[in-house]
Amino acid sequence: MVLTRADVERAADRIGAYALRTPVLEVEPGRWLKLECLQHSGSFKVRGAFNRMLGATPPAAGFIAASGGNHGLAVAFAARRLGVRAEIFVPEVCAPVKIAGLRALGAEVVVGGAIYQEALEASQKRAAETGAAEIHAYDQLDVAAGQGTLAIELLAQAGDVDTVVVAVGGGGLTAGIVAGLDGRAKVVAVEPERIPTLHRALDAGGPVRVDVSGVGADALGASMLGRIAYDTVAGRVTSVLVSDEAIVEARHALWRDHHVAAEHAGAAALAALRSGAYVPGAGERVAVVVCGSNTDPATL
Amino acid sequence: MVLTRADVERAADRIGAYALRTPVLEVEPGRWLKLECLQHSGSFKVRGAFNRMLGATPPAAGFIAASGGNHGLAVAFAARRLGVRAEIFVPEVCAPVKIAGLRALGAEVVVGGAIYQEALEASQKRAAETGAAEIHAYDQLDVAAGQGTLAIELLAQAGDVDTVVVAVGGGGLTAGIVAGLDGRAKVVAVEPERIPTLHRALDAGGPVRVDVSGVGADALGASMLGRIAYDTVAGRVTSVLVSDEAIVEARHALWRDHHVAAEHAGAAALAALRSGAYVPGAGERVAVVVCGSNTDPATL
Repeated sequence: MVLTRADVERAADRIGAYALRTPVLEVEPGRWLKLECLQHSGSFKVRGAFNRMLGATPPAAGFIAASGGNHGLAVAFAARRLGVRAEIFVPEVCAPVKIAGLRALGAEVVVGGAIYQEALEASQKRAAETGAAEIHAYDQLDVAAGQGTLAIELLAQAGDVDTVVVAVGGGGLTAGIVAGLDGRAKVVAVEPERIPTLHRALDAGGPVRVDVSGVGADALGASMLGRIAYDTVAGRVTSVLVSDEAIVEARHALWRDHHVAAEHAGAAALAALRSGAYVPGAGERVAVVVCGSNTDPATL
Repeated sequence: MVLTRADVERAADRIGAYALRTPVLEVEPGRWLKLECLQHSGSFKVRGAFNRMLGATPPAAGFIAASGGNHGLAVAFAARRLGVRAEIFVPEVCAPVKIAGLRALGAEVVVGGAIYQEALEASQKRAAETGAAEIHAYDQLDVAAGQGTLAIELLAQAGDVDTVVVAVGGGGLTAGIVAGLDGRAKVVAVEPERIPTLHRALDAGGPVRVDVSGVGADALGASMLGRIAYDTVAGRVTSVLVSDEAIVEARHALWRDHHVAAEHAGAAALAALRSGAYVPGAGERVAVVVCGSNTDPATL
């Protein structure tokens, strides 16, 4: 299933009053940071969550999601804002502080298995029983379309951008951006070397399972690219890999040089520029998406 | 000496290529945060430093300033960018980490006395000997005019703003904003209860010395309002005071709710709204200046 610009435009109309229009910071001429780390719930994920909820008639059982991270926070935030019920399934490895954060937002939290995949399956089983509407973390059209609204905003803020650099996890944001830009700018898709879901999928001609490890795993830890992402982005992005060291360095640089607090995943796109994994041409105008800030600031 | 809008417009032309145009974040309809905490060197002070340096022919001995805080960092940053010499006099109480930070920016650092006032006097003595050009932290026309460029930017970003809320130290930023707005929006000037330089000056009919203490002292610690600030803002601002507790609360809220890292002084303006020290009217459109981020993120 290929996500289209029309899907993203429809999402932008839906969520405009709910998601923040996050600012861009032009740090030098033709170099922007899109500060999505300032978004409600601390990441872009709330765009997709709002679009999914606003695009459905809420069932009595509300919405259900599996995530111990940014997606869970986003679903909980959006549910509270819209006054609907949200049930979040988290794996046993989920830190107690994150569970407390989800509960503080009013979500019902269920520990649903040892690892994410088990929590996801438990959430799907529950949804089948209760009639709750599932909100997938990336492989759902309304979710990916919601994430893509970032691209439409960016074009209004930095209309002459040539290239958008973005981190890839399950691929929802990347698919949304590719569809939202629809050729108006090229896309560089950045992954940690230790979680190359897109890179391997492009090699293999379709999503394949990869091992997940490293500093980006808490937020970019999908073990396989989504189907919608593959169908939407294959042949339309430049895929590059960055080391964990480069991600750590970029995160520190964001704080030291720009006073922006980001999580590791949020700094991965910048790491591609700073490490030389992607080298822009002369005069190329580049926007880097800083996509999340759910981090312990003591580690900046 | 009254600062004028023309002074600020001239400054905006001068520093446009050097200071960042910091973004605004509309956190709800008609409530903006002006994210000056993302400025080069981590505070608005670099606007005034650039304007002072670009408005003068640099003497062979370069520029000289007294500050162990944001002003010193800003002067050092601007000097490096413009390739001129900077000498920064700091008091003995200045933390070693701040001295290291100034030296990392290429400044020459001189420990010039037990407290700020002594460092200032030592810097003025040195300037008289060497011919270096002094950059005052607030009571200098080019400095205050530079700070005011923030207001011209803000009007372009949030043109229908009714009220700008800003923290006051020596008054350079407040004077610049009052002059830059020139009646286009009203100004609420916020001070810690424990450093009421403006509040007391307005009561006394002119700048008077006050005791300085509390969480804002490292960045709002001028013991007396500047003369330019008094002449420019008297009768043109609403002066309110906030407790240290309110400042601490607002700083935590900025991080928790908006993922913005600010220093205590940078959160003082928001504290006025959150604590009710200033209550906007129905429909009043308010911009809050978050003016600095030179802080230890571990304390967020």
